[in-house]
Amino acid sequence: MDFRVVLVEPLYQGNVGSVTRAMKNFGFSDLVLVNPCKLEGEARAMSSHARDILANARIVTTLEEAIDDCSIVIGTTGISGSRFDLHLRVPGYSPVEIKERLKGMSGRVAILFGREDHGFARDELKKCDLIMTIPTSDIYPVMNLSHAVAVVLYEFSDIKVGDTPLADSLDMRLLYEHLSELIDNIDYPVHKREKTKLMLKRIFGRACLLPREVHTLHGIMRKIQRRYDSECKQDEE
Amino acid sequence: MDFRVVLVEPLYQGNVGSVTRAMKNFGFSDLVLVNPCKLEGEARAMSSHARDILANARIVTTLEEAIDDCSIVIGTTGISGSRFDLHLRVPGYSPVEIKERLKGMSGRVAILFGREDHGFARDELKKCDLIMTIPTSDIYPVMNLSHAVAVVLYEFSDIKVGDTPLADSLDMRLLYEHLSELIDNIDYPVHKREKTKLMLKRIFGRACLLPREVHTLHGIMRKIQRRYDSECKQDEE
Repeated sequence: MDFRVVLVEPLYQGNVGSVTRAMKNFGFSDLVLVNPCKLEGEARAMSSHARDILANARIVTTLEEAIDDCSIVIGTTGISGSRFDLHLRVPGYSPVEIKERLKGMSGRVAILFGREDHGFARDELKKCDLIMTIPTSDIYPVMNLSHAVAVVLYEFSDIKVGDTPLADSLDMRLLYEHLSELIDNIDYPVHKREKTKLMLKRIFGRACLLPREVHTLHGIMRKIQRRYDSECKQDEE
Repeated sequence: MDFRVVLVEPLYQGNVGSVTRAMKNFGFSDLVLVNPCKLEGEARAMSSHARDILANARIVTTLEEAIDDCSIVIGTTGISGSRFDLHLRVPGYSPVEIKERLKGMSGRVAILFGREDHGFARDELKKCDLIMTIPTSDIYPVMNLSHAVAVVLYEFSDIKVGDTPLADSLDMRLLYEHLSELIDNIDYPVHKREKTKLMLKRIFGRACLLPREVHTLHGIMRKIQRRYDSECKQDEE
């Protein structure tokens, strides 16, 4: 399993440095920074002996660039899942639950961490396949950014990697496009389409699909489409 | 289970502040600082919404004061157990292993974290019943202090507390005194006594003894002593 840490618009360079140290402590090295703050002396000081990770971090301007080659995108948030359920229909998983889910798989997985002050924007959360919440006290659930990274990487550092490849990011994109077409073609109420497409992305995203499962899902959708087309034709005749 | 976090001579106030934040995130509040650095604005800034824990931290001048009412004292070190084995005969346990060991118990447990630069002194390590090592990469095992606290408290935050009380600190102290007397009274080679006493403290310390087990151990030692005394008397006659 190739894990990538993605920090979305981190505000404090000390935190970025601390994140690289935690990454090196637990054996991770792939870091992508989306529009980060300036990274100068304090970042290097906090990274300590992990300056190589800081120096090699890829800096991009959009979240898409950070994740477009990843099979699974995990968004880490301090706010429990229920608050998101209303709009984004995401149950929040604990690091242990996600570890269990990824056991035996192989592929590239992005772990996203949001801004220190406001976390993720709605459209950023939509891009996540899984939402992860570290179980914290209700009294003070908001963790320091680098602490959150340290805890997640500690949990993931002993993950049992396997030979089962996850469907890659292109497979998943084509699947979502096919699902989207299907929803558009079956007389599904127009005002419900967007939310339903997001729900389907959520379901298939968190299922950690294998390539052959994606293949079979395409087959099922083609069957549905064909049956639906022929019925439509009969209705017209 | 009452967990106490003990920082031994922390050097950087930012770290102390960050530790209090991690404590509050995971629902812990008992903090004791042994000869800490000055705690001023930076400590408060890093503690964020955990300033109450920072303000209520007990400051002491010796490690003894920090731990003398604790049933079990756990020392956290980034250096794996084997290096200590030579002198202090301590196998290093992972946080998960210690959690497993404390499951179902109740009592006060101190978790010690050493200085940012040099960790613990030898005589401080001798005071620990258990040594805990967070599993890290061999390439860079030295974690930031507050990261180490965050990871350990994350792991311990869902510990299954029980009704089985641990032997308290007075019980354990009396047990060690009794063991020490016994070693002194049985013709054990003088040059080996100190190391053997430490080894016995290690064994019984990490066993997380119950009060009735301590009681029975005293009984066994009294029997040995009595038998030994009577044989000595016979030899003399």
